[in-house]
Amino acid sequence: MDWKPDFSSETPLYIQIKDFITNKISLGEWAVGTKIPSQRALAELFNVNRSTVVSALNDLMAEGLLEGNTKGGTKVINNTWNLLAASPPPDWSSYVQAGTYYPNQPAIQHINRAEFQEGIIRLGTGELSPDLLPSEQMKQIFEKLSAKPFSLGYEEPKGNRHLREQVVEYLRDLHIQTSPSNILIVSGALQGLQLISMGLLPRGASILLEKPSYLYSVHVFQSNAMKLIGVPMDVEGIQTSLISRYKKGYNASLLYTIPSFHNPTGCLMPESRRQELMKVCADEGLPIIEDDVYRELWFDDPPPLPLKARDPNALVLYLGSLSKSLSPGLRIGWVVAPEPVIERLADIKMQFDYGSSSLSQRAAAEWMESGLYQQHVTQIREHLKRKRDLTLQLLNTYFLGIATWSVPSGGFYIWIRLTVDVPMQMLFDRAYKAGILLNPGSIYDRNAGSFLRISYAYAKMHELEWGISKLADLVKEISISAV
Amino acid sequence: MDWKPDFSSETPLYIQIKDFITNKISLGEWAVGTKIPSQRALAELFNVNRSTVVSALNDLMAEGLLEGNTKGGTKVINNTWNLLAASPPPDWSSYVQAGTYYPNQPAIQHINRAEFQEGIIRLGTGELSPDLLPSEQMKQIFEKLSAKPFSLGYEEPKGNRHLREQVVEYLRDLHIQTSPSNILIVSGALQGLQLISMGLLPRGASILLEKPSYLYSVHVFQSNAMKLIGVPMDVEGIQTSLISRYKKGYNASLLYTIPSFHNPTGCLMPESRRQELMKVCADEGLPIIEDDVYRELWFDDPPPLPLKARDPNALVLYLGSLSKSLSPGLRIGWVVAPEPVIERLADIKMQFDYGSSSLSQRAAAEWMESGLYQQHVTQIREHLKRKRDLTLQLLNTYFLGIATWSVPSGGFYIWIRLTVDVPMQMLFDRAYKAGILLNPGSIYDRNAGSFLRISYAYAKMHELEWGISKLADLVKEISISAV
Repeated sequence: MDWKPDFSSETPLYIQIKDFITNKISLGEWAVGTKIPSQRALAELFNVNRSTVVSALNDLMAEGLLEGNTKGGTKVINNTWNLLAASPPPDWSSYVQAGTYYPNQPAIQHINRAEFQEGIIRLGTGELSPDLLPSEQMKQIFEKLSAKPFSLGYEEPKGNRHLREQVVEYLRDLHIQTSPSNILIVSGALQGLQLISMGLLPRGASILLEKPSYLYSVHVFQSNAMKLIGVPMDVEGIQTSLISRYKKGYNASLLYTIPSFHNPTGCLMPESRRQELMKVCADEGLPIIEDDVYRELWFDDPPPLPLKARDPNALVLYLGSLSKSLSPGLRIGWVVAPEPVIERLADIKMQFDYGSSSLSQRAAAEWMESGLYQQHVTQIREHLKRKRDLTLQLLNTYFLGIATWSVPSGGFYIWIRLTVDVPMQMLFDRAYKAGILLNPGSIYDRNAGSFLRISYAYAKMHELEWGISKLADLVKEISISAV
Repeated sequence: MDWKPDFSSETPLYIQIKDFITNKISLGEWAVGTKIPSQRALAELFNVNRSTVVSALNDLMAEGLLEGNTKGGTKVINNTWNLLAASPPPDWSSYVQAGTYYPNQPAIQHINRAEFQEGIIRLGTGELSPDLLPSEQMKQIFEKLSAKPFSLGYEEPKGNRHLREQVVEYLRDLHIQTSPSNILIVSGALQGLQLISMGLLPRGASILLEKPSYLYSVHVFQSNAMKLIGVPMDVEGIQTSLISRYKKGYNASLLYTIPSFHNPTGCLMPESRRQELMKVCADEGLPIIEDDVYRELWFDDPPPLPLKARDPNALVLYLGSLSKSLSPGLRIGWVVAPEPVIERLADIKMQFDYGSSSLSQRAAAEWMESGLYQQHVTQIREHLKRKRDLTLQLLNTYFLGIATWSVPSGGFYIWIRLTVDVPMQMLFDRAYKAGILLNPGSIYDRNAGSFLRISYAYAKMHELEWGISKLADLVKEISISAV
């Protein structure tokens, strides 16, 4: 809401606010059933005293438009027209609750909103900082696009042919041999997961995954009545010795893994563990989703070959993306899988959104074909490495003795465990008040209450410096006051 | 598949084909369980005699890689590695069948594939022909984008702020008063429907809609175990006198309607019917999804105001899009709804695909802000009107006496009823052989077996001329031979 009362007007502030709210209700923007923001929040939004808000709300309650209670806040119960209709207007809140798709966790909803607040330091955000996004090179891409005949129609169900050919070339360097017909272009790897969830699995299916895992932070599978079964990790990744037991115990249909620069732990699965994983999954006939979106972001050496590069039995559904290494805003990723799987997923995608943005697909193809993508990634590796080094140094300076952490060899994340007693919600709130946004570990594993996912990708160098030192202060403050 | 055998090689053709297929199997592109194309199809693909294909397949069966039967075609049953593993490789076909999302109707799958065949005349396709897409103006948009600071990060959950402001301005001209917080940017109106289906309705819910309707051609609601309940139309649109009865009889949760230039009938709901519809839905407390994606494509006069422009009780969830009037490839549409609804849908969209392409959103905002969009739409109206006129003239020339049809005052579609006895599948197949792709009416209403959706939007003028005359010939041929 951008509106503010006019402080120079002769109309009293509370009347202006009352009129504003009445208008929002009568336009249906705040429909009957809507819970309006708290008095405190409104006072902040409008830049007025809380008592001014209270006066406005009292009037609106007296007029029968709002209803307040001490606990649940204030709700819209009427608008100026609805008395004319034979039925009450639809109670949208009940519709909102009836939907089958799970809402985001409250912590994530909070984060999603707070990310767009100006000036906030985002210490957990899993994306490249805006200054690392190639906006200058993007102009070259626009020029290249302008120079070619350009159609803006729908693309083929599996995605733009030229882009799929580029992806095939790209995958060849990773020792994945495939063809355009085995590739589906998706709007980011997350959409690939969504399609797999709806296209390949029955309700009630179980999916094995690393614990903690990014996948716990979305409801792609749970919203289709599927269960996530976390398998413990060690420093080399998912514990392969446990997989047979878990597979049998939960009758698992799939295993989801992020072998390279795992989200949130930063863990890199070494060659030997990859071989073990492929062996046990082949023995069990357990298909794998390999989420490989961080692969390109290595610092010293490239990670071992993907699981998909050693997959004669077609166990692996492979997910790649440009979101982490080039631009999340393009929303371009890919699924590599056997043809019947790709055809099934493409068929659903046509019913979902009729394919990904043609503009984005063509821009992505230009990035890959021109070599600008590889150039860019090389630079990003250096930048990220410098940011990782700084962050580790800051952790050593400020967090020694109050936390332990992993040292990632690529990707975005450091998985920090606080070794002093700090209620995470309190830390989150205090940090937020101080202008720092955190990603608590519990988003990725309900039992990881003492962990944080720190990302060195998004915040700028000076933000990392200030933010991490400030965060250490807060941890110390809270842990002392808790004693 | 682009591969063809090398006809100048000394290696016999059937060996080349055998090697090609073995390779596809061993790479896992044709995984175990895959049904491979028919002998006939392979012969066509490879440009060889069917007997050559049979020799190759016989060898592969003898080697235990394929298994054929007289009915179900030929399947991959082994690859060269899978005998090493303790378990058989995953049977992906069974995964494909287990998924909860409905596949497209076979007719639509056929159409989706055939649309990308070169030279085919698409008489049913619901999109602007490539020469009507503004590829030249798009270059101006690229220039405008290049001139501004350009971020390629994720956008806000509800979509790019600037685009939402442009949409608010645009909607104001349609007498819809709203604000950016009441708008969600989606990847086309179809995604808006998907989000509504998952976000607002329980499994088992019933949705009223016009019969026939575009909505029958996708499985957005059915895949979430919801039912579509068709309400008969007359020349003014959905029969409002029936709505109360249907609502009660089926305990309907929502009504879906396309009041302006209905898909597939082309029907325009007049002002009086719109008022009746709003009245009955207000009386019944029945919310409406207004799909208004064809609104801009009027020929002589703009359609009556949207339902959403007369919606004080917030009954209406409004869907708009640039796909039909500007470019389907941008994949940009919007939902307008009360705030709690928009917040719910935005939250799900974040779990679906993390928002629509930033590139597309920024390009769309430029189109709208620069005035180029309105200029373009004005031109499109003229072009489309000329194509409609030509098509009506062709129908009068060739179809008088064998069909009746509607005369649309906007949009893309003419709904044709064949009055002679023609099995539609046969007509579809014969037309396809002659190079014409049709959209049979049964896609939009199971009982509309004698109807066709003709679109004058996609085919070029000379394609319309040849295609419609040829189609009339085929109808006459088939109907005579059927007697």
